[in-house]
Amino acid sequence: MKKERFPPLEKLAAGILGGERALLGRALTLAESTREDDRDQAQRLLERLLPATGQALRVGITGVPGVGKSTLLESLGSWLTASGKKVAVLAIDPSSSQSGGSILGDKTRMPRLAADPLAFIRPTPAGGSLGGVARRTRETLLLCEAAGYDVVFVETVGVGQSEVLVASMVDTVLLLLLPGGGDELQGIKRGILESVDLVAVNKADGAGEEAARRARVEYASGLKLIRPALAEWQPPVLLCSGATGQGLPELWQKILDHRALLERSGALADKRRRQAGEWLAAEIESGLTAAFRAAPAVAARLPGLEAAVKSGRAMPPRAAAELIAAFLGEGSP
Amino acid sequence: MKKERFPPLEKLAAGILGGERALLGRALTLAESTREDDRDQAQRLLERLLPATGQALRVGITGVPGVGKSTLLESLGSWLTASGKKVAVLAIDPSSSQSGGSILGDKTRMPRLAADPLAFIRPTPAGGSLGGVARRTRETLLLCEAAGYDVVFVETVGVGQSEVLVASMVDTVLLLLLPGGGDELQGIKRGILESVDLVAVNKADGAGEEAARRARVEYASGLKLIRPALAEWQPPVLLCSGATGQGLPELWQKILDHRALLERSGALADKRRRQAGEWLAAEIESGLTAAFRAAPAVAARLPGLEAAVKSGRAMPPRAAAELIAAFLGEGSP
Repeated sequence: MKKERFPPLEKLAAGILGGERALLGRALTLAESTREDDRDQAQRLLERLLPATGQALRVGITGVPGVGKSTLLESLGSWLTASGKKVAVLAIDPSSSQSGGSILGDKTRMPRLAADPLAFIRPTPAGGSLGGVARRTRETLLLCEAAGYDVVFVETVGVGQSEVLVASMVDTVLLLLLPGGGDELQGIKRGILESVDLVAVNKADGAGEEAARRARVEYASGLKLIRPALAEWQPPVLLCSGATGQGLPELWQKILDHRALLERSGALADKRRRQAGEWLAAEIESGLTAAFRAAPAVAARLPGLEAAVKSGRAMPPRAAAELIAAFLGEGSP
Repeated sequence: MKKERFPPLEKLAAGILGGERALLGRALTLAESTREDDRDQAQRLLERLLPATGQALRVGITGVPGVGKSTLLESLGSWLTASGKKVAVLAIDPSSSQSGGSILGDKTRMPRLAADPLAFIRPTPAGGSLGGVARRTRETLLLCEAAGYDVVFVETVGVGQSEVLVASMVDTVLLLLLPGGGDELQGIKRGILESVDLVAVNKADGAGEEAARRARVEYASGLKLIRPALAEWQPPVLLCSGATGQGLPELWQKILDHRALLERSGALADKRRRQAGEWLAAEIESGLTAAFRAAPAVAARLPGLEAAVKSGRAMPPRAAAELIAAFLGEGSP
């Protein structure tokens, strides 16, 4: 990243609270920087803005590639902005931390929303670790809330860790499925089905409608085998079409219903407190692990001990104790 | 625990390798001790015995309380010892770390096996953390292998974390279900279904047989929605009765088939290397976290920062950085 000067904190904070897109963009760039001094500035900015966060509907959208997440977001997002809502779309793609660039980075996937003054689209920043992607998405979400966005969608690539991550930062998780039937559920990451609050069978239009109806029955019976996250809420299975817009008002109503139940039952406040606590625990864990792995005394011993453990020549508790003692400078046995 | 003197390492090791139950029992008591010097001795003993471990069939058995795990183990275990196999039954019950005693501790649940010279039953040791329970069960498993047991069953209480733990230490996971139908799958811990290698509908005897047949069809169709751990192995759903012994030879044959596939495909060696690596990572993580939480500089700051994070007054990355800096003695900002 080229060295840039950022506006002073006061100006950034006031601009964001005033809904100025250009300053929001600058703040996001600041938050995505990995420079130590930028990180520190970003944290100060976020702490100042925290009181203005928390009011948005935070909705995660997951599903396999090709299920039509972008098309659905384009339709649903435009329908929301048409009624005056401010909508942000973030993408979470941990694979971008390996590839160095996000496959979701292309705003042309949602041309209508990208040109919409009430909408804001932000792809996953490239580079960094999985934990880094999670942190920056959470921070982006908070900055968008401070900037007055009413709905923040967090879109995943639908494979690997991204679904678990998204469930840890939103209020409502929507799973999009194709009218393909039961086999498709096999592609869903372990554990994610239990975090799903809403299911929609997409592409339920034209020739696909009949297949979607049949798939809906099959999915609904499959989901009954999964314990729901909230006892009072059995995740409904809806039909929709991102292409025609069919079913979107009903889908949106269910998202509102779910949010209302979360608020009424006190589960929303609990969930957000828990998510904040989990975020802290994750930051502690990743920070400790990073410090541990970076320590020369650990780096010198880890590969040998790991190989010994994996080949059944050393006991994990003893190997761990030796490494931790080395890390904490207590010498090693 | 009362202070006891243990036999010298050489004697313990030789006794275990010679299959002497009394010395195996002493070694298990040593391994369960939380005294620093005992832990150290236990680790030395285990490292000496490691070359004699790894040959057993490691089978996890999970299912809700009341599904009949003990009765099944009593029948299956006795059937195996009748053919000359040495069988060990370990129980993993993380709740005992809270309650201070294991509900699985009562050997009278399996009176026939308990009196069988070829069988060895060991309940979860009381007290200690979840990580402690996992570690001691893994160590007990290794000691039983060194003592020549051909089959080691690890039984869970079927709720909470115990199912995830058991899957991290065995080769084959057997899930027992009641003939109750689809609703029952809801009681299964998230993620565990993907770790299941075999399913058996228990109590498929007498009046229950017809219901068990129907349930089998329902479970089999439900399981098709779950991605199997091994592409070549779709978990079979069998019928059995621990009470009458019906279906147990077929069940055992499937366990052998699964093991043979694991060996043939190379998945067994991979799995055990991975499990050893995960054990090391878990020990490092729990050791680091314990050292972190025990540090006075952390203990002084953590409650306040945690509360600030949860109530949305502080940013998790900054709070974590402050705590880690305090832990590593770098001072705090």
